[in-house]
Amino acid sequence: MTYNVAIIGATGAVGRQMLECLCQREFPFKNLYLLASAKSEGKIISCFKKKFEVQNLESFNPEDVDIAFFSAGSKISELYAKTFADAKCFVIDNTSFFRMNKEIPLIVPEINKEDLIKYDSKIISNPNCSTIQMLVTLSPIHKLSKILNIVVSTYQSVSGAGQNAISELEEQCYSYLKGENIKKKTLPKQIAFNVIPQIDVFLQNSYTKEEMKMVNETKKILDSEICVNATCVRVPTFVGHAESIYIELEEKISKVELEKALKNETSISYLAEGYNMPIDCEGKDFVYVSRLRKDLFKDNAYNMWVVSDNLLKGAALNSIQIAETLLKMKML
Amino acid sequence: MTYNVAIIGATGAVGRQMLECLCQREFPFKNLYLLASAKSEGKIISCFKKKFEVQNLESFNPEDVDIAFFSAGSKISELYAKTFADAKCFVIDNTSFFRMNKEIPLIVPEINKEDLIKYDSKIISNPNCSTIQMLVTLSPIHKLSKILNIVVSTYQSVSGAGQNAISELEEQCYSYLKGENIKKKTLPKQIAFNVIPQIDVFLQNSYTKEEMKMVNETKKILDSEICVNATCVRVPTFVGHAESIYIELEEKISKVELEKALKNETSISYLAEGYNMPIDCEGKDFVYVSRLRKDLFKDNAYNMWVVSDNLLKGAALNSIQIAETLLKMKML
Repeated sequence: MTYNVAIIGATGAVGRQMLECLCQREFPFKNLYLLASAKSEGKIISCFKKKFEVQNLESFNPEDVDIAFFSAGSKISELYAKTFADAKCFVIDNTSFFRMNKEIPLIVPEINKEDLIKYDSKIISNPNCSTIQMLVTLSPIHKLSKILNIVVSTYQSVSGAGQNAISELEEQCYSYLKGENIKKKTLPKQIAFNVIPQIDVFLQNSYTKEEMKMVNETKKILDSEICVNATCVRVPTFVGHAESIYIELEEKISKVELEKALKNETSISYLAEGYNMPIDCEGKDFVYVSRLRKDLFKDNAYNMWVVSDNLLKGAALNSIQIAETLLKMKML
Repeated sequence: MTYNVAIIGATGAVGRQMLECLCQREFPFKNLYLLASAKSEGKIISCFKKKFEVQNLESFNPEDVDIAFFSAGSKISELYAKTFADAKCFVIDNTSFFRMNKEIPLIVPEINKEDLIKYDSKIISNPNCSTIQMLVTLSPIHKLSKILNIVVSTYQSVSGAGQNAISELEEQCYSYLKGENIKKKTLPKQIAFNVIPQIDVFLQNSYTKEEMKMVNETKKILDSEICVNATCVRVPTFVGHAESIYIELEEKISKVELEKALKNETSISYLAEGYNMPIDCEGKDFVYVSRLRKDLFKDNAYNMWVVSDNLLKGAALNSIQIAETLLKMKML
């Protein structure tokens, strides 16, 4: 069996990763349509020696497509996802638009693939990048003992803000080193040689939208009773998000038991000594867990350090794993 | 009254700040001796239109000095601090060598200046940079309600690792942008476009020495019962440490009360909306507190974002404020 597949937002940082991921994983596609806005129409994108021509999303007929990966911003998902779904196409949406919608499942296949059946929806949401790597790590722990509280501080790369933010970091570094004025465009403040404790917009409760994604998506995916305190920070790295995570468990669990659970997960690379960093994880599928340390004063609390490629497991890879799961579960 | 003052380690990142700080604050010095290793002997350092010649620490007579600021690494403090103290000189030591010594006070003047009298010691320790800015922030809160737990993740600039680490970040950025190989020297891993969850060496309990400084110094300065979970991370910024801090209090305290306490502190700059970043705090004396947010699920817990110039309040400024306090208290 082969399928007609479309990537909406194919010229963006995540869209490009989706294309590469689909080719590399030999996803059984018959036709692969790269869709974007009118201004990218006709652009040629190469991948694994194949050439693809970018088509205009506006004039595209969704009836030809079995699976559509959306990653062109919330506005585009709002405008087009339902049209694709109505044409009996599975929509796997990487934007935040449908994530908290009660009729739409929010999926990390390792954790809650059964929600695909429970919700029985043509539109499926892919969680936020920082949520995915945190929950891939915490899900096996939550099976050992209920996690009560999470305190997480992130170190998020500029690629999470798209292709323009990657160029912006490079340009700002050039300007700084040449002694020229630093210009900002995409990100809210200077990112070169700085850190910005703001990702996405501020909400009324003083948390940012990114922080509330981590709070609410954790509840939807893992357990509605888990309390999350998140501080999301942009740092001057290109690819790979890092997270300093503190958890409090309902029961006392030994470090040995935790390590065993983490090592058992095929999507986790666990390091007992030393640590992983953003530069280690670029282009890799794993969620890297290191620096697991027991709270010095409590037997039911731990600190850990988690890094992963935000464009892969945090976005493109997880979306494609959702599609692969649909195939395995014969839902398509 | 004027005093003879010496800076030991005068050519380093903190030593230079000490010189500038002493001149800028018009510290009443008669003679100011800049001391360093033999290899810097004869070097001329200018500050506020005055010129100072670097002298060799090894051949220097401490009997001429009333106050000596040490910032040349633990080894030098171990070798020379007692000699200076025996010559009736006050030693204000910015290294970690004496910090946990039971006979030596560890001072943040705003918090525990009375320990100067209690310990009655010629050697006085200056705390670690990341500890100082955290405790300046938490001390007024601790007066409102006992702080039970602290979870802190840091975003520490390369200047905390000295002058060579500053050059290393610049050189690595140049190499990266030119497409050349990145070389590392001072820091344990590549810092350009990366973050490193290791500051100082690892200890047997899996925490780093930097993390344990935050744990133990907090207990010595603020309250021996406070539990601290620290994750210390080096980020590619030049100057200014940032900290994401989560605290749990014994009692429920409203955000308004917390804000009032923070605004009352002359060494804190509190921002109710928006946030401060490392690039905002360079060269400034304040500890900047912003993004104060109540835990969404508990009424006795808060998140906040704290930045400060690690070379100033985190090191040079605090050391000089200790000396100023000795003068005010007529201990000298």
